[in-house]
Amino acid sequence: MSNPEPIRRAIRDKELASLGDAFVNFVYSLALTQRDGHPKGVKVSDRILSEAFRLAGLRQYLGTRISKKDLANATESLLVDAYRKQLLTIEESVKVLCQNPDGPEAGLLDLLTLAAERMERL
Amino acid sequence: MSNPEPIRRAIRDKELASLGDAFVNFVYSLALTQRDGHPKGVKVSDRILSEAFRLAGLRQYLGTRISKKDLANATESLLVDAYRKQLLTIEESVKVLCQNPDGPEAGLLDLLTLAAERMERL
Repeated sequence: MSNPEPIRRAIRDKELASLGDAFVNFVYSLALTQRDGHPKGVKVSDRILSEAFRLAGLRQYLGTRISKKDLANATESLLVDAYRKQLLTIEESVKVLCQNPDGPEAGLLDLLTLAAERMERL
Repeated sequence: MSNPEPIRRAIRDKELASLGDAFVNFVYSLALTQRDGHPKGVKVSDRILSEAFRLAGLRQYLGTRISKKDLANATESLLVDAYRKQLLTIEESVKVLCQNPDGPEAGLLDLLTLAAERMERL
């Protein structure tokens, strides 16, 4: 059974997005560090974050007049909400980001899809 | 027995500082979120990071002509190196940041001191 409410709540929570920004930058940086074999720190762009949201088929959860920034925030909110609800760990997040052969940008879509699936089961 | 080498190596590694930035912002944001009861995301300032480094008595590990930014980077490098070496977890870091009655800024000094003590035992 699929329950859309936890996702709807998460992605409309503006405060979650700012914590989510810190979460996403951290796990993405860890993934690049693991891939490249030396430490890296990055700020994941709104382009990457918003694209993942669209490609995960989650656009329906947001209303009209939505900016790229809103879609990026929604990705950040959903991911950190899943982390706080113990549906995702840091280790698993890094693993998912790393294991897509097309790289962590494609891995972000996998991670978001996984988080959304687990949220829908709540 | 106190071994200064792991600390020396960590704080001179510029690449570690950029990953450390993501680590520190994440655990500090989680600590503020826990303290305030609602999600927060922050970028910890160089002032806070450099002050912690000085107060932890670690200034001796760096050379002369050191800027505030260098001290801040050293805090970030040391903390994330301790995390990567499994001397600190996310959960413990957040707990230490939260438990100082003077707030997470004072808690950061506790966390840095703890990380340095454990690094010195390597």
